[in-house]
Formats: sequence, structure tokens, C-alpha cells
Amino acid sequence: MATSNSLDALVQALRRLPGVGVKSAARMAFHLLQHDREGALALSQALAQAVGSMRHCERCHTFCEAQVCEVCQDPERDATRLCVVETPADQSALERTGAFQGLYFVLMGRISPLDGIGPKDIGLKKLLDRASDGVVQEVILATNFTAEGETTAHVISEALKARGLRTTRLARGVPVGSELEYVDLGTIAHALADRR
Amino acid sequence: MATSNSLDALVQALRRLPGVGVKSAARMAFHLLQHDREGALALSQALAQAVGSMRHCERCHTFCEAQVCEVCQDPERDATRLCVVETPADQSALERTGAFQGLYFVLMGRISPLDGIGPKDIGLKKLLDRASDGVVQEVILATNFTAEGETTAHVISEALKARGLRTTRLARGVPVGSELEYVDLGTIAHALADRR
Repeated sequence: MATSNSLDALVQALRRLPGVGVKSAARMAFHLLQHDREGALALSQALAQAVGSMRHCERCHTFCEAQVCEVCQDPERDATRLCVVETPADQSALERTGAFQGLYFVLMGRISPLDGIGPKDIGLKKLLDRASDGVVQEVILATNFTAEGETTAHVISEALKARGLRTTRLARGVPVGSELEYVDLGTIAHALADRR
Repeated sequence: MATSNSLDALVQALRRLPGVGVKSAARMAFHLLQHDREGALALSQALAQAVGSMRHCERCHTFCEAQVCEVCQDPERDATRLCVVETPADQSALERTGAFQGLYFVLMGRISPLDGIGPKDIGLKKLLDRASDGVVQEVILATNFTAEGETTAHVISEALKARGLRTTRLARGVPVGSELEYVDLGTIAHALADRR
């Protein structure tokens, strides 16, 4: 497939997708050109459209097309609780539980010193301003339970406590439906310490 | 991530890529919008460009931008040998070996009755015409060694033999660098039968 310039360009462009290597990219290009040219054009337009219209919500920083996203605009939501998540996908997972009625702040990343991502890159200043609006009473830290997510939660927590704000963290424990025998020891230890 | 129309549209469009489910599509969309908008635009343009300019070579049926591809135009290639492959990726693998100087015919598919793909869909008629040009002396069947690939090779072989053309098949045997202990029995049996 090395003879054609626009095919090569397409394979190279597909490789920029996360998790797509050169073989997957070639397979995708082949599939689109041979079996789904309509899908290729739809993807082309969707990409241009999304890049052109998507920006960040002024209040919670998630992706949206308006100045303020629908969740932040919703007067039914409980503005005293602010949930901090890493990505819009995490926010979506929380929304789908239906268990949270408050508002969100989406970091659009996590602190990761190894990748050179510090507190400034995840908009810590903006979060502090948002949480200090006088309405928010509790900041729920729902960053991931990875090393980077825990670091991020710790840094945010310290900064918020310095401003006298109350922070909580999602509970650590045994996942619903799992058997103790197959749960990792760190999780069991946490579940034991946080028993209620 | 369900609140934005153009983001939803992008996730749906990405799902049309082979091997990409809803979670991967959301991760790709997030990555492109947050970290690589330039890459998103490059991909958008590459898709439109490829769909607009890629067509099939008149002689070998592979993807190319001209009427006849570079390989078919090359006067240095041995026109007496025609190698039949399923996809441009297979052709590329053969080319990279540097062991074949002849020409190709790319089926752009394989016979697969379960998927409703018969001899007509892989351009068997076109292949027969191409192989009967009076110059081709040997047709090398290099379809994959899967059930569909073997079926395809068998059907093509029968049709070509009926026209008095000589067909050969890539050798089946033990892969280079492998230990017999770990090779499957079918392969060893074939290697034994085809010993030389």
C-alpha cells in the first residue's frame, strides 16, 4: 500500500488516533475505502464539525457547544455540591448512575509529573475560583483511583482545605458483584479500614 | 458526553471504524478534541482526499490514484507471473519480502458464503480475463490460509485450470524461526507431506 500518496496520508492520519498502530490504521483505511466510503465522508465531516464547534463550558470546563453546558445551566441541580472528575467520560459514567444531582468540574486531565503535567495544566486555579463561589459547600473528588488520580485528588484536596472548603472522596471498597477471593488485597484492606 | 450534538456525531462516526466500540470511540474523540485538534483536522482532510481520489487500478484492481498503478506500469516486472492476493495489505507484505518480481491481481475480498460474498463479488471474471491475456504463464494463488482464503483459492484455481492456465499456491509449512513443539499439528502434517 506504499504506492499511493493519499492512501499513505490517510494511514498516517489514522495512526494519530490513540491505540491505533500502523496495521490497524491500514486495516481501517482499507475498510473505509473498500466497504464504507459513506462512513469515511461522515467521519471527515464529523471531525471538522466537532473541531470547529466544540469548546469548553465556562463553568465546569467540559466539552460543549454553548458558552455554558446543559448541566451547569440546569436550575434543578444541587449547586452546593461540586464533583471533580478527570474527563467527560468519567462525568458521563457518574451521570449514568443517576445517583448524583450536583454540578461538575471537569479537569480535562490529571496531574502526572512523569508526563510534565502539573497543577496549572489541569486548571487548578479555575477550580479553586469555581469552588469558592460561596454556594458550593462540598467538593467531591472523583478522580480515578490510579497513582495519578490519587495525586491529583490529594493536591486539589490540600488546596481546597487551605481555603476552608469541605472535600470528600469517592469510597474505596469491594466492587458490587465481586467475590472477596478474587479482589486485590489493597482493595480489601481499604474496605476493611473504611467499614461502616 | 451525551449533551453535545457534534461530539455525539463524532463518536458515532468513529464507531464505524473496524474494531472500534463506543468506549474506544469516546476515548478517541476526547483525545482528538483535547490534545490533538490538528490531528483531527488532518484526519478529516485525509479522509475526504482519499475518498475523492482513490480508485481501483484497471489492471490489478488495487487502490491507486492513476488509471493504472505503479506496479502494473513498471516495465521491469515479470509479466508472465501473476500473483493473486486478497487485499492491498497482503500485496504490501509480499512486496516487502522483495522475493517476487511479477505482477499482482488484488481481489479486494474473499469468497465467504456465510457473508453472502460469492465469486462475482471478488471480480473472478475480471481476473480470468486478466490472466488470459496471453502473457501470463503462471498464476500464483496467495490468498490467506484461512477457510475463506482456501475456498477462494480453490474456486479460482478450478476456473483458471478450465482455461488451461497453470496455477500454483504459496507453500504451506513450518514458519521460519519456529520450534516444532509449538507448531500446530495441521501445519506439521502439511510440511511433512510437502517435504522437499
